[in-house]
Amino acid sequence: MASIEDRLSALGRVVQWQRDHIEIRQLIASYGPLVDTADQQVRAQRLAELWLEDGEYDIGGVHPCKGRAAIAAVFEERHFDQVPEGVCHVMGLPFITVTGDEASALNYSCVMRPDGDARFFPWRVSANHWELVRQQGRWWIRRRTNRLMTGDPQALALLRSIDTMMQDPSAAAPDPETT
Amino acid sequence: MASIEDRLSALGRVVQWQRDHIEIRQLIASYGPLVDTADQQVRAQRLAELWLEDGEYDIGGVHPCKGRAAIAAVFEERHFDQVPEGVCHVMGLPFITVTGDEASALNYSCVMRPDGDARFFPWRVSANHWELVRQQGRWWIRRRTNRLMTGDPQALALLRSIDTMMQDPSAAAPDPETT
Amino acid sequence: MASIEDRLSALGRVVQWQRDHIEIRQLIASYGPLVDTADQQVRAQRLAELWLEDGEYDIGGVHPCKGRAAIAAVFEERHFDQVPEGVCHVMGLPFITVTGDEASALNYSCVMRPDGDARFFPWRVSANHWELVRQQGRWWIRRRTNRLMTGDPQALALLRSIDTMMQDPSAAAPDPETT
Repeated sequence: MASIEDRLSALGRVVQWQRDHIEIRQLIASYGPLVDTADQQVRAQRLAELWLEDGEYDIGGVHPCKGRAAIAAVFEERHFDQVPEGVCHVMGLPFITVTGDEASALNYSCVMRPDGDARFFPWRVSANHWELVRQQGRWWIRRRTNRLMTGDPQALALLRSIDTMMQDPSAAAPDPETT
Repeated sequence: MASIEDRLSALGRVVQWQRDHIEIRQLIASYGPLVDTADQQVRAQRLAELWLEDGEYDIGGVHPCKGRAAIAAVFEERHFDQVPEGVCHVMGLPFITVTGDEASALNYSCVMRPDGDARFFPWRVSANHWELVRQQGRWWIRRRTNRLMTGDPQALALLRSIDTMMQDPSAAAPDPETT
Repeated sequence: MASIEDRLSALGRVVQWQRDHIEIRQLIASYGPLVDTADQQVRAQRLAELWLEDGEYDIGGVHPCKGRAAIAAVFEERHFDQVPEGVCHVMGLPFITVTGDEASALNYSCVMRPDGDARFFPWRVSANHWELVRQQGRWWIRRRTNRLMTGDPQALALLRSIDTMMQDPSAAAPDPETT
């Protein structure tokens, strides 16, 4: 039987892994409500604060943005007009890996818009790769890459990152035997 | 180094936070299968048991219901006819905050229905705010507010509750340093 | 006050339950990226490795497959042609129960495909029941049953398994009082 000390340490490692998973889910779940209420610069800036100061957002079919100011600015182009009509960025289940203060997540997103009476349509369905870092005790986006699922070879390359993510030991909890 | 006692207590607080998050996800994940098989009063009543006895469900475009009997009754109006045709209440990732025995969750829902051969359509895409309480060791819905994402200002106001939810300390795990 | 030993054991049981939930979410989240990049046999075989060697996949509207080779082969029929056009298997939130090394999950899936310019359509919306087993320290699919949500009575029967799943004690965390 392991010592109390060893059992506490092993439990602590699993709990830390679980905490990282849940906090990263929270970050991704916050994106939709933040973006779908961003109808002016002050709200677009709040959304951009999910990223590091020099974070990057490379949007499929749009263009790459670097830095919070550029990220906030990209929503001015057409998104501000969509918000009052209703636009929904629905996030799919993320697959997550974590190594220390760095993490990756892979998920789909589906942007829904109204389509006349009692009907919506999926406007953009995309693959997303999130590079995340922990600073000051919370997770931030360092880089999010988004690619439309219209046969773009870059979208398929992005999705194939699941292969290496699944081989990452942190795809499962640490040290299950010793807890 | 903290004492064994202190480390156990700190771990216990994080584990409690994680448990609340997972149990609330379970509650939200149960909604779809329960509602999409509710084709008669006995099943609508079972669905209504997700709510407190005097719980509230305020459905966008329909009307507010108070109490389990009223909630079960609202599904008679048209939902019972949709179940045999196939109707899917797909729930989006929730953003969750918890304070003691009270919690909030914010997510999207997307109701899919068949649209002829080999095709479905999103019928209702909505923002949802869930007020939850723990009683007798499990979580119940006190009030769910649902608003269609068709530009309804109330839907946008509901989504902007993400601002205060993100500032809630329970949006992240408690006491990370001491675990 | 419980002894250190008892508190550690109680915490360990809750942490184990949480780990199972998160690892099962990871498995389900990996399905989309794996299938939507499966454009040749070698990738279909990698996808089939989510199943046990003699696992089963019973696809609504297609036919049941038994064993990894048969599961990999089923994607040759039309799926390989869809991958280069863009196809997205978006997984809904799972409801999960776990008993020792066996688990069940119930969720929706929604397969999105491009529909001309700046528009996608939900092609298949299905109910899924996953029977999972833990072997060699990780979770595998023993049997996945998938039924289209077009009014198929088998789809509704599958969804009604939520009734027994909700009564399973493992739908909530173990021993909340003693942690």
